[in-house]
Amino acid sequence: MLLPGERIDQLFANDIQIIQSKEVFSFSIDAVLLANFPKLPKKGLILDLCAGNGAVGLFASRQTSAKIVQIELQPRLADMGQRSIQLNQLEEQMNMIELDLKLATTAVKPDSVDLVLCNPPYFKELPTSQKNPNPHLAIARHEIHTSLSEVINVSSKLLKTNGRLAMVHRPDRFLDILHAMEAADIAPKRIRFVYPKVGKEANTLLIEGIKQGKKDGFRVLSPLFTYDDQSNYSPEMKAMLYGN
Amino acid sequence: MLLPGERIDQLFANDIQIIQSKEVFSFSIDAVLLANFPKLPKKGLILDLCAGNGAVGLFASRQTSAKIVQIELQPRLADMGQRSIQLNQLEEQMNMIELDLKLATTAVKPDSVDLVLCNPPYFKELPTSQKNPNPHLAIARHEIHTSLSEVINVSSKLLKTNGRLAMVHRPDRFLDILHAMEAADIAPKRIRFVYPKVGKEANTLLIEGIKQGKKDGFRVLSPLFTYDDQSNYSPEMKAMLYGN
Repeated sequence: MLLPGERIDQLFANDIQIIQSKEVFSFSIDAVLLANFPKLPKKGLILDLCAGNGAVGLFASRQTSAKIVQIELQPRLADMGQRSIQLNQLEEQMNMIELDLKLATTAVKPDSVDLVLCNPPYFKELPTSQKNPNPHLAIARHEIHTSLSEVINVSSKLLKTNGRLAMVHRPDRFLDILHAMEAADIAPKRIRFVYPKVGKEANTLLIEGIKQGKKDGFRVLSPLFTYDDQSNYSPEMKAMLYGN
Repeated sequence: MLLPGERIDQLFANDIQIIQSKEVFSFSIDAVLLANFPKLPKKGLILDLCAGNGAVGLFASRQTSAKIVQIELQPRLADMGQRSIQLNQLEEQMNMIELDLKLATTAVKPDSVDLVLCNPPYFKELPTSQKNPNPHLAIARHEIHTSLSEVINVSSKLLKTNGRLAMVHRPDRFLDILHAMEAADIAPKRIRFVYPKVGKEANTLLIEGIKQGKKDGFRVLSPLFTYDDQSNYSPEMKAMLYGN
């Protein structure tokens, strides 16, 4: 079941096993944050865009009976994700599709999705960008094959009216995210900033918007700290990683 | 020196005395937060818009040699502010102008201000708005005589290129603030969310933008907590109120 260089890691909080590879892709803490951010619909359809090795959808699966469709561009990563679905015996609930998200409407019906989860590439693709020489990691981190606008536009097409998009990203892209959401008729509604520890600037944000939602009622949720003063995971982070 | 109903309060952190009145206007903690938020220019010109009884400019005065001009619409409040300037012997540095900010360019030269400080009315003026029956307080809190867009447009006119606007407001107006800043060619640059305590949603935000600034480099500063777990002021808040 494992290819050379692959290993099986476990997210203890929800008893999910996940196939990873240092050379190809390993999930980051951001996947855990995103899977725990939105209120998941109990049923219906969840779409995990830019799914990577499938971490976000796998972690979310334990808290919902909704179908979870995952879309990932890179064949090597999509294959790892599909095998993790099998490893966790989630074939009934989950499905990994190897596809460029530009073509997502060929696989998922427009206006059919209750919740899109997306952990997209964070970094703008600029002539000056320093990229990882490993193409798997470079594609996952840099906007080489997609962009923030494209991810958000595709999400908007696939979401039902009042369906939600939940995304993890970097604070320095915050204004870009808002512009792209508004251009795609997704009303930003809830945001949570993640700070490495007390006294530090935010290094991550979690944002949720509603397709064709009302423009008012924007909320800034309680701050989330990754680490405590002793550089151990904070209690909230520990609960996400190891359970209560 | 005091009119009926007025009293003199003291901000201990910077040894400022301020004339207040429960019936007319008393500064809130938000004025203290705003005065402590931006890096103040050492010299040049600071403008305190929607100055009320002058708290923000008075508190800022101790940390800069810049001239501080204050603009307040309500005669009763402007008068209190002018007397507080005298009370603190700040007539050389500070000047309170009773004026509608729509006419600000008649008193302050366009493109001349290094920093605008503004604690504007927070609440949209809607037919359904519940307003304070006291007109002084209603005007200070509701967008009756001005609006977010107007405040930001006036600020932009008065600021130098690369001059800064620092504002305190409510998180539910965050998207409105961003839109108004961008429409007025002020690039949002730094934001700090103020949370009443750990585990609570933000109830206040501090934002700084730069006139004709570059659109990148947005930063979310460390979270500020008003109270600790025992509902006492947090150490950072205590320092702003009582000094170190």
